[in-house]
Amino acid sequence: MAVERLLCQYSGFYNQYFQENQGITGRKYDRALELFRSCYLQSQPSKSSIPSARLCLASMPSSFGKSNVPKKKGVQVLSPNLLSPSTMLELLDAWDDEYNGIVIDSGSLPLTANTFASALRSSLLNWKLKGKRGIWLKLFEEQSDLVPIAIQEGFSYHHAEPGYVMLTYWIPDEPCLLPTSPSHQIGIAGFVINDDREILVVKEKCSCSCSGVWKLPTGYINKSEELFSGAIREVKEETGIETTFLEMVSFRHVHLVAFEKSDLLFVCMLKPLSLQIEIDENEIQDAKWMTLDELLGQQFYAEDEMSRKVIEICMDTYEKSYSGFTAQQVISKFDGKLSYLYYKKGNKI
Amino acid sequence: MAVERLLCQYSGFYNQYFQENQGITGRKYDRALELFRSCYLQSQPSKSSIPSARLCLASMPSSFGKSNVPKKKGVQVLSPNLLSPSTMLELLDAWDDEYNGIVIDSGSLPLTANTFASALRSSLLNWKLKGKRGIWLKLFEEQSDLVPIAIQEGFSYHHAEPGYVMLTYWIPDEPCLLPTSPSHQIGIAGFVINDDREILVVKEKCSCSCSGVWKLPTGYINKSEELFSGAIREVKEETGIETTFLEMVSFRHVHLVAFEKSDLLFVCMLKPLSLQIEIDENEIQDAKWMTLDELLGQQFYAEDEMSRKVIEICMDTYEKSYSGFTAQQVISKFDGKLSYLYYKKGNKI
Repeated sequence: MAVERLLCQYSGFYNQYFQENQGITGRKYDRALELFRSCYLQSQPSKSSIPSARLCLASMPSSFGKSNVPKKKGVQVLSPNLLSPSTMLELLDAWDDEYNGIVIDSGSLPLTANTFASALRSSLLNWKLKGKRGIWLKLFEEQSDLVPIAIQEGFSYHHAEPGYVMLTYWIPDEPCLLPTSPSHQIGIAGFVINDDREILVVKEKCSCSCSGVWKLPTGYINKSEELFSGAIREVKEETGIETTFLEMVSFRHVHLVAFEKSDLLFVCMLKPLSLQIEIDENEIQDAKWMTLDELLGQQFYAEDEMSRKVIEICMDTYEKSYSGFTAQQVISKFDGKLSYLYYKKGNKI
Repeated sequence: MAVERLLCQYSGFYNQYFQENQGITGRKYDRALELFRSCYLQSQPSKSSIPSARLCLASMPSSFGKSNVPKKKGVQVLSPNLLSPSTMLELLDAWDDEYNGIVIDSGSLPLTANTFASALRSSLLNWKLKGKRGIWLKLFEEQSDLVPIAIQEGFSYHHAEPGYVMLTYWIPDEPCLLPTSPSHQIGIAGFVINDDREILVVKEKCSCSCSGVWKLPTGYINKSEELFSGAIREVKEETGIETTFLEMVSFRHVHLVAFEKSDLLFVCMLKPLSLQIEIDENEIQDAKWMTLDELLGQQFYAEDEMSRKVIEICMDTYEKSYSGFTAQQVISKFDGKLSYLYYKKGNKI
């Protein structure tokens, strides 16, 4: 579980400091660190030797209750026992990232809450001394008992998804430079028009503002799904119509939607490969092929500048007086990943 | 804290069920619910009266320890006292969403962990009976003690950001239809070229694959920031150069980057309004104006198809033989929000 152990060296300093500052937690250790660092640096020849410093963290107080408490999932919260100055202390398993930060190994965290708390605290102090910057801690759902401890030690939530939550701790005394959590949901709309110039439209089942309105099929893309694949899939799921991707003709950027995050909605021109509609009754109230006049004749469209503009762009694309972006698969040396570059190929202007 | 109280009515059923099934938690209540529902429906005229059902939840067992445990932040974990069948039970404050789901009011959660656990459990059973679907629970950092309880009751992490974590519970016995957590980070690259046909380039400070390479300034957009504003800001921050936005010429979509999420990188054509470079030494090693030949002459570009293509597109845009999307502010009636629609204006083909 812990790969590195530190032996007390400055036990006198720490014992004195923490006896005078009972209950100190989280960011408040910065002051302790500062005092300790000034003490430490006076007795060490250069900063470069800090990574091998052997620190006394034995007498750091715990703030987790005062009695032995059986907690669920077998995690124990124990009262702090002041260890003798020569006690070996465990640090969390972790590795460096390329930004002088630390990634804690979630797979080898201590099994008891008090051991985790003490190892986390020791590790933070160690990383501060080493001049580390951003600390990453991923806790799986089965490790949720450790979340309150990490928060108490000064960690913040970064992002989460089913199965885990990621927490971070920014050490430097300057604005946090860690990347923010994922900020956007990505939606797609599919414009499908048949040889009779009828457009494929759906009525959603929800009771929101578009209730009762005939509109283009839309949806969110799945994890790691391509934009055009998402459009093809959503159209198929909602209406049963098979399509192929032609062009990305436009996109909309809007903020403070679900969870106060942002949305990008990409409008895809698709070519129908089938005509027989079969709706997904879970999501869709109805679907049909509709003439342009019928579609734009709805009161909703008269009042919705954006939807009118999108339909106009799609019709111009259909009539070949407009062209958007197509997708080309490219590999970038920046990350070695296969990806899609969307741009306008051929007929440049 | 709780707006709704239920009085026991089917205490006989529940007492018997839970005496026979000690320690049942989370999803296992489904079976209890099913049995209870069949019992309930036999004695009620129609399903429509379910919302006013008066249930016995008094004897539901708690699984939180067996002794009084002072926890941090004053949250108490108490042993379950089997309440008398006529005891009033508290439900969590919550409101309906438009998808027949429930949003729990984070601002009025019980202050003690055991009260929260019992109210959450009662509420879940109540919502199941009412045929509710997705349940949303937002817990602020100061409520992190409640995270393990919610997880234990069957909630999953949905998303998080500094300050809070959002958890969800999907009730129906069918695939979850809740929107996924935000999936994308949004980056921008700024292409700035001066009247001497020199391109503004930077060398990043990081030690990644682009270390030492002269490249376009790039960065992530801030929360609720427009794409073009983000490009203008990043160029200004990294190089000191003031610009205005001309066009969005291309974008790249790539998966499984940071946190296994996806990235969209938008390439913006910007017009310089100043020429004097002043770098941000925190992020950037160096910045300068560089000729196209010098830029493309780097070994990195010879090996990076994507970067070459992007520069080619940008140069075509500069020479007016290519045009991408511009941004038009539009309001959509779908959500009433001011947003930007990106598409190709004028000179359609």
